Amino acid sequence: MPELRQNAATKEWVIIATERAKRPDHFSKRESKETSPGPEFDPSCPFCPGNEHEGSGEVYRVGDEKSWRVRVVNNKFPALSPKGEPFRRSDNMNRSVNGVGICQVLIESPVHNTTTALLSGQQMIEVLETAQLQYQRASADRRIEHVVLFKNHGGAAGTSIEHPHWQMIAMPLVPAQVRDRVTEALRYYDDNGECVYCRMLASEREAQVRIVVETELFVAFCPFAALSPFHTWILPRHHRASFGDTSHDELVDLASNLRQVLGKLHHGLGNPDYNLVFRCAPVGHSKVQYFHWYASLCPRLTKAAGFELGSGMFVNTTIPEESAAFLRDVKIDDQAG
Amino acid sequence: MPELRQNAATKEWVIIATERAKRPDHFSKRESKETSPGPEFDPSCPFCPGNEHEGSGEVYRVGDEKSWRVRVVNNKFPALSPKGEPFRRSDNMNRSVNGVGICQVLIESPVHNTTTALLSGQQMIEVLETAQLQYQRASADRRIEHVVLFKNHGGAAGTSIEHPHWQMIAMPLVPAQVRDRVTEALRYYDDNGECVYCRMLASEREAQVRIVVETELFVAFCPFAALSPFHTWILPRHHRASFGDTSHDELVDLASNLRQVLGKLHHGLGNPDYNLVFRCAPVGHSKVQYFHWYASLCPRLTKAAGFELGSGMFVNTTIPEESAAFLRDVKIDDQAG
Repeated sequence: MPELRQNAATKEWVIIATERAKRPDHFSKRESKETSPGPEFDPSCPFCPGNEHEGSGEVYRVGDEKSWRVRVVNNKFPALSPKGEPFRRSDNMNRSVNGVGICQVLIESPVHNTTTALLSGQQMIEVLETAQLQYQRASADRRIEHVVLFKNHGGAAGTSIEHPHWQMIAMPLVPAQVRDRVTEALRYYDDNGECVYCRMLASEREAQVRIVVETELFVAFCPFAALSPFHTWILPRHHRASFGDTSHDELVDLASNLRQVLGKLHHGLGNPDYNLVFRCAPVGHSKVQYFHWYASLCPRLTKAAGFELGSGMFVNTTIPEESAAFLRDVKIDDQAG
Repeated sequence: MPELRQNAATKEWVIIATERAKRPDHFSKRESKETSPGPEFDPSCPFCPGNEHEGSGEVYRVGDEKSWRVRVVNNKFPALSPKGEPFRRSDNMNRSVNGVGICQVLIESPVHNTTTALLSGQQMIEVLETAQLQYQRASADRRIEHVVLFKNHGGAAGTSIEHPHWQMIAMPLVPAQVRDRVTEALRYYDDNGECVYCRMLASEREAQVRIVVETELFVAFCPFAALSPFHTWILPRHHRASFGDTSHDELVDLASNLRQVLGKLHHGLGNPDYNLVFRCAPVGHSKVQYFHWYASLCPRLTKAAGFELGSGMFVNTTIPEESAAFLRDVKIDDQAG
């Protein structure tokens, strides 16, 4: 019998389709892409060393100009423009705002053919430190109301550039979906006097059936109502509404947790395409007690179609407890780097 | 300068990314797939005549057993099970419901290699009549709270079966996204005393800049905050909350409107992959004054990625007014069939 499950925090329902269910190892047997995606250096890649002049301006760098380790550049094809003021216009029916915002690309390594899952521990820490700095800088811009930090890995996840990178889009408003989730979280807090994400974390740690990786300060688990096979949430154990307010000790621990989770995906499922998103409270809500930031990792092993578009619901063809057990069992060498 | 636009009914914001904007004819110059996708009859296709026994049971048929024109069958790999009762379970944190529901496939034609855009007017009417009958039957099942009727066309839209077909998923709850939209529509009605979709329709007809096709009883237009290139909504002119309550005259007119819109996509953009969804009020809200049903057509010419997943917002690389003008100008022969 299939099951409909609801995420207590987002209120989203998902169909766990046991009738068409695939065992987690179904996905591990697909064609692996673990072989190198290209050369260490690609002269045509705008993110490779030597091509720094091709970008739209360096914003930040870790390391020397000639031997950088992490770089942040302005997006060459920005969805939002960095200049100007966000004026609102409205004729009662149609509302619009000038497309003002910050669109940056964070290049994780000078090496073209590596991938986030294979970064050393120290590299991952430097990437997260850089991401946090840019997140904080964007949040301090008085025009910015919400910041989305994300990573697309592979063609199915929507990127055409192999060189490992993150993106940040900072915008002058709060998206409707984010606003709705903040409202849901506030409602739970009103009813229960605690953060729904903190409660979920406690509940998952007690149940111990959907945990993927526990480190000292972060917990990775497949949500009870996981949207898709191996969908994983990574939450800070201590209440924090925003990645921007995460302490340095937490960043170091997150680097370890994230490396383990991505390593398990990479080695257990043959380097699948994925989206990784840091979901934070809007800038103005960054200190609230009722919203909790988290990283959401969605491997792109199945395709969303009309049903998902038409209902906002997902059909998950694996059982979250089985996805989590599969990932728990993947052995990785966490000592490297 | 890019622009952020909000849909007045759904409250969703979209980025109209003029900096990376593509002119509509960029898409028309891509490789066309107008050539036939396969033979008229494919012996390995479960939807082709002669293979009727391979399905999971015929539910409805237009025409004789040996010369049917439209057929409805149970989905062979149903996401929800047709038997049982939808019991709710809750431990305060995790809520679930037995996966009870109705999953059907509507086969639009016995011909394997045709496509919805090329059906005759009479065929399209019979398809919509059949879809409405099944929608009404599902709505009458006391276990069903919401029905999603949709069509995936092509691989990028999530279907692996070429033989033209629709799908219906009827479920024992209201998805969170649908509930949120109903709530938004109710709020507008409370404030303004009219249906927000009726108002939007009047506003679009007055502005005449985003209209694609107007027929006697339906209007197709690219929404002011279109999610993606050529994203089109088709609304009934008279207030109706549900496709189930659409009159027969309206069905006939909708067939004409939909054929024209799909014909323009097919001929103007080289048969792009698309999702088509009928978005209706939940079953219990089918008579309300504040919600309006519509068909939403999303060509899959671009790919959603981490940003969309992480914010619920879309980046549209075309200007909706230009998409609409392009589609208006595509000439089709509406007299055929």
